[in-house]
Formats: sequence, structure tokens, C-alpha cells
Amino acid sequence: MPAWSCGVRPTTISPSVTASHTRPFRVGLLGHGTVGGAFERLLEERADAIAGVVGRRPEICGVLTRSRGDFGEILERSDLVVELIGGTDPALEYALRCLRSGKHLVTANKQLLSRHGEELFEAAGESGAQLRYEAAVAGVVPAIRVIGESLAGAHIERVHGIVNGTTNFILTAMERTGASYEEALSEAQALGYAEADPTEDVTGKDAAAKMAILARLAFGTPVHLDEVPCEGIESITAEDIAYAKELGLSLKLIGSAERRADGLSVQVYPAFLYGGHPLAAVNGSFNAVTIESPAITEITLSGPGAGGSQTASAVLGDVVSAMIPPSYNPPPAEPQPLVSDVESAFYLHVEVADRPGVLAQVAEILGLQGVSIKSVVQKGIGEDARLAMVMHAVLESRFRAAVDLIERLDFVRAPPRVIHVIEEVFE
Amino acid sequence: MPAWSCGVRPTTISPSVTASHTRPFRVGLLGHGTVGGAFERLLEERADAIAGVVGRRPEICGVLTRSRGDFGEILERSDLVVELIGGTDPALEYALRCLRSGKHLVTANKQLLSRHGEELFEAAGESGAQLRYEAAVAGVVPAIRVIGESLAGAHIERVHGIVNGTTNFILTAMERTGASYEEALSEAQALGYAEADPTEDVTGKDAAAKMAILARLAFGTPVHLDEVPCEGIESITAEDIAYAKELGLSLKLIGSAERRADGLSVQVYPAFLYGGHPLAAVNGSFNAVTIESPAITEITLSGPGAGGSQTASAVLGDVVSAMIPPSYNPPPAEPQPLVSDVESAFYLHVEVADRPGVLAQVAEILGLQGVSIKSVVQKGIGEDARLAMVMHAVLESRFRAAVDLIERLDFVRAPPRVIHVIEEVFE
Repeated sequence: MPAWSCGVRPTTISPSVTASHTRPFRVGLLGHGTVGGAFERLLEERADAIAGVVGRRPEICGVLTRSRGDFGEILERSDLVVELIGGTDPALEYALRCLRSGKHLVTANKQLLSRHGEELFEAAGESGAQLRYEAAVAGVVPAIRVIGESLAGAHIERVHGIVNGTTNFILTAMERTGASYEEALSEAQALGYAEADPTEDVTGKDAAAKMAILARLAFGTPVHLDEVPCEGIESITAEDIAYAKELGLSLKLIGSAERRADGLSVQVYPAFLYGGHPLAAVNGSFNAVTIESPAITEITLSGPGAGGSQTASAVLGDVVSAMIPPSYNPPPAEPQPLVSDVESAFYLHVEVADRPGVLAQVAEILGLQGVSIKSVVQKGIGEDARLAMVMHAVLESRFRAAVDLIERLDFVRAPPRVIHVIEEVFE
Repeated sequence: MPAWSCGVRPTTISPSVTASHTRPFRVGLLGHGTVGGAFERLLEERADAIAGVVGRRPEICGVLTRSRGDFGEILERSDLVVELIGGTDPALEYALRCLRSGKHLVTANKQLLSRHGEELFEAAGESGAQLRYEAAVAGVVPAIRVIGESLAGAHIERVHGIVNGTTNFILTAMERTGASYEEALSEAQALGYAEADPTEDVTGKDAAAKMAILARLAFGTPVHLDEVPCEGIESITAEDIAYAKELGLSLKLIGSAERRADGLSVQVYPAFLYGGHPLAAVNGSFNAVTIESPAITEITLSGPGAGGSQTASAVLGDVVSAMIPPSYNPPPAEPQPLVSDVESAFYLHVEVADRPGVLAQVAEILGLQGVSIKSVVQKGIGEDARLAMVMHAVLESRFRAAVDLIERLDFVRAPPRVIHVIEEVFE
């Protein structure tokens, strides 16, 4: 663990530490599909900033695809190998050769880990190489790091996860629109959230592989994919969802790993959640994992499921961690100006005399300052009226200037009330 | 970074690695209030399991309180110091002496970090000691580790957080019950979610300190607490919240740190969030942090705000990370039996002929198998009726046995449908 990973994480590069004089950190890349390509681009884009953080610049020293590259030569040249081939043949052979030769391995391969984890862990243990696989589970959600590191000292009782974005997209669509399973699946396929052959996802197999990996990590027991019973979502009906809605329940494909008196239970099944459950609000193609332990109660981690750039980012996080030497002198922080007048959306509440033209005058002042109104609620109360409005984002100083003018209007009965509004991340 | 932290996290101890022959890892503890006491208990409880993971057994080698212990002697004896005194005097002096002597420091002290971070980072950098402070921000939510490590290679654009549990409890209560600020504050005080003097929390000062720490880490720029403008929740009215509800908005005290064209903006203010925002569903005393970066879109981390055992757990996670040598041979995983017949709540949907006594017979069969009904929806459709029920938790085999019997009833028109139900974590 780096002395400084938690203290200094400069994303601005200090020229003194771009480390152009130190040897680059050489990354061999196996596989160059969507994720491989995204990883290569992201690494190049972030190489200088990473050099600023860890003192060495990462660079791709070789790429293996079906038609080019030689694994042996790439391994020879690499400090670390990123495996993005998928499947187990030839990924398993390459992974074992890499770890046995003492080179670090970062992989996004859930098949490899859930079928051959023990072999890989053993090989890494013997050579002292690092094996990192954050990207194999739950996309960008850092479940592996949080379970393996933040909670390394904790007694974990249960891990519940929505670890497949395709099925969560389908179930969310069914819940929102009342669509049948078939209709929602077609929509997911049309939008690129489901494959032409969705079997792996909708049968729960994909989620089962991820739960095998999480259970292995959380409970320190070997779990093979074939030992995880799974039930998919193919037979869920619109009617199930409609009835359950009346009972205050929403449906998710849940991966569950938990301690029981007589051992461990690791399963995947569709399940209804009550509204108060932290996973109940996880919608669309998002993934999330809830970890329960007596000391912490629970932690929930959520974010987009696997997409090319998300997976690439998780892989890069693992690469950077593997690069960091046990202790190093960090660069000093780079001062940046702190600004306080920034764009924001706002809520404005004004008490006014209830007479014609009031809203028009308020709106005119806002308009003159470049403030645009998104929604308004107006209510008469006796001789007064209340205007509650939400504005589109605008520079705070301009909005405050408008409010100062509004406050001076003779029909305004009390100081206007202003509160920030944060827009949805995806609108 | 340990070779194995991500691969092997046994919580069961293998006798070969309890490492009774290796020297214990000595932890000096400064401060013995609620968190200090909880940390000491947790460490003792988990010491053997941690020895199984990292090969050394942690133990408390000295405790400093106002009335007992000598800092110099404790420092001398310690491999790592845990600082839980709070405030800056004498915590700053102790922290600097610790780091300058090359001993690792784990602290939960947001004042120390947000006022004197640069001095501390410099001292740690010079000696190569580790400075870890997960517990200083957002309770058990692992924001520091995820920003500092998982996203070490990412370009972070924005960090939004609900980092004060007291204010979130108050705002949630106002939203749910229509209470005034004063009423909700009294309730929070009565339930132990707010201090007798709630100033630090309700003015946003506490959140500002945490945002200064997060901004420093996310953007690599020094941010002092005094540079973070903050607005509290004292003047929020029940009316604001009621109007906003009509506009689809919910109110949170938001800490915001983001890149702007001309520098950084770090602020704390109450803000309305649209329903789709990942922080909108974070209620009660929970904390949450959303991190946005182009490559990942966003990650949201949520969990209980600071309580004694939660903070202690975050401190212990840091201690374990600091203990782990750069590379070590992990113990093999311990096999545990995988069980598949476990307790669960269930949803049951049955199509029946609409005639008297049907529900009674179904309920009787369930009762004979020990299955207890939590809620029922019954609807007539023509000559048929549909029963949709949710059961309390029961061993799956018993529930399935009941369903088999129900299926054989002559008035049942179609195979019953069964789906798992996951109960709320806190009911």
C-alpha cells in the first residue's frame, strides 16, 4: 500500500515529477475489442497524470490480438499484463504464465476467476505477483476493492448485488411501462443494453459468475461458478410486477452471498425488494452492491454497469494500484484558484400580492438577467399568492442580482427565498 | 499494495498462518471516547482474523487519555498510531511527531486534515510513513479509498456528497412529516442524531471540513476549511419543502467540489435534487458521495453516517491496509459448505376460482407448513380471482412444500408463481 495513495492524488502534473527520466511502466495488453480499445485510449490520455501521481509513466508495450502479436514476447517486455480476451481458452494459459513469471495481472474476466480462481490465486501467491480483477464484477462499482481492502478487517455477513445491467434495465422497463418481458427485452436489444443472444444475462449465469467471485473474496472460501444455483428473469410477467407494486415491492435480479449457520449460501434469483432497501432505487442498467457487516451496518456502492469506458476505467484503477511502490515521496499539491460564483439551477419562492401582472414582472426581471424559468407553481392564499419556481442553470451572481431586483418590487410581501437545485445527472 | 489483498481475504483463520511466532503489529491509541472504545473492542475481536489475512496480529500497545499514558512512550512502542482525540490541540503536535518519526498514522480527525493537511502530508512524504484518514469523511462510506485508489487514474470532474448525517436526518424528517426545522431538530436531539449544541452540523461547518478533505484528494489542490463557503439548514422552512415536493424535488445539505473553467468550486449549501439524482434517495442519517468522471460516468457510495462502531470500522480498515506488506503469500482459502435451502421471504401468486373459502384453504396449508403471511392482495377477475401474497421469512423447502400442496387444490387454475422477497435491512 502506497504511503500516499490516500493523501495526494494530484491530477495536475507537477513538471518536476513527470518522471521522464525514470523507466516507463510497461503494460502488455491481451485483447483489443471494445474494452481493450477503450483501455488503450484511456491509458494514453491519463499517462502523464498517472506519472505525476506514482512517479512512473505507464505505456502499452505490446498488444495481442487474434491476428497479431506474440504472447511470449509481450510477457517478456511487460511489467504488468492486462487480460481482456475473455473466456478461458487461451486466457487461462496466458494468465497462469504471467503470474508464474512474477508479472502482475489485471483482468476483467469473470469466467476465468469464477472457474479457475484457485489456480490463479495459487500461482500469484507463489510468485508474489499481484492479481487484480475489479473490472470482472459490477462494472465501475468498486466492490472488489471495498470488500478486499476497506473491509479487510471486518466480519462480512452478507453481500447482495445487482450485478447485471441488462436484466436490471429490462426489469426497470417492465416496472415503469408495464411492458411484458419480451417487449422490454426487445427494447433493451434495440438500445444496445442486451446482446442479440441474451442467454448469459437473462438466465442469471453472468450474475452467478460475479457472485462466485464476490463470495470467494468476502468469505475466504473457494466458490466455483457451477456451485451457484441461478434463476433468471425469463418467466417474470408484467402481472407479477403490477401486483407487487401494490404491495410496495420492486423486482430486481439479486445475487446473494451470505453466511448461514451451516455454511454459505450463494445464489442468484429475481427478488422483490421493499422500497426502503438500498438496492430498490437502483434502476436502468446500473449495478450496485450492498455489503452488510455488524460493525458497519451496511455500505452500498452503485454506478453504471459494464460499458467499454467504464470497464476500462476499472482496469486502469487496478493498473495504477499495481504500479504504486510500497512507499514514495509524493509531489506537492498544485494550488488551483477556488472560485465561488458558479453556475447552478435555483429554486425561488416569492410571496406576492395576488394581482394581475405579478408573475409577468417577476419573469421579466429574471429574463433580463438571463435567468430562464424551468417550472412554476403559483398558489393564492387570501389576498396573497406564492410563487415557487425552479430556474435553469445560471451564474449565481446573475441570479442573485435578479432576486435583489425582485425583492424591491412593491407587490413582494417578504424576502424571497433562494435554494440551490441540483439537476439530475442524466436528463 | 499487497499482492493479495484483492484475491484472498480469508475471514476464517488457517492455523498455519495465525503467525503466533511473528511479532505483533503494535497500535498506539490516542483518545478513548466512544470511537476509541469501539475501536479497541473491534480490534480485539478481529485480531485473529486479521492475522490470518496479513500474517501479523494487531494489538493495542498503549492508550493515551487525558488522565493516563505518555505520548512519547506510546509512540516509541508503536508501529502505527491511531489518533481519535479530535480537534487540533494536542492532536496536531502528536500527529506530526508520529509521522516525522516514520510511524504510520490513522486518524478520524476532520479538523486536523482540513486545517493542517499540507503540513501532515509533507511530514508523511518526508519520512515515508503512511497517513490514512478514511474515517474523517462520511462515516463508513469508503470515499477516500475509492477516490484515492480506484480512481487514482481517473480525471474527476465533480464530487457531490451528503456528508453530514445530522442534517440529513432533520431534512428527511421535515420532508416525511411536514415538521418545521425546530421540531425536526428536537426529534433528532431526542433520538441522539443531533448534539445538544448542533451548531457545527446545522451550519454546514462539519460538512465544509469534509468537503475540503475530499476536494484536496480529488483535485490535488490544497483546500483549507476556511476557504469553503458554507450555508446551513437553519432557515429552511416546512413550506419550502412542501412546494418543492410538488415540483418533484427533495432537499439535502450538499457538499459540492467541482472543476470550473477558472479553478475549483468547493461549497456547502442546501439544495433541491430531482428524483433521478443518485443522492435523492439517501434518507435519514445516511451519508453518500457521488463521484463523476467522464470515463466512469459516476459512482455513488452510501452507508450510515458516523456512529461509534462505524467510525471504528473505517479506522480498522485503514490500520489493516497500513499493516499489509508490499507482497506476501496468502493463506489458502478455507473451504466452507455451500448450502442452498435457506430462509427467505416469498411472494406467492395464485389464480383461483372465485368462491368462498379459497383464501382460508390456501392460508391453512401455508400455516401447517409454518409459513406466515405478511400481506395479501385479492382481486376478482370474472369467475376467477388472483391472490398475491407476501410471506414472512421461512425455510425455502417448507415454503415450496406448501406451494406443492396448494398447486394440487382443485380450485387452483394455473401453476402458482413464486418469487423471493428481500426485506428491508432496517424494519
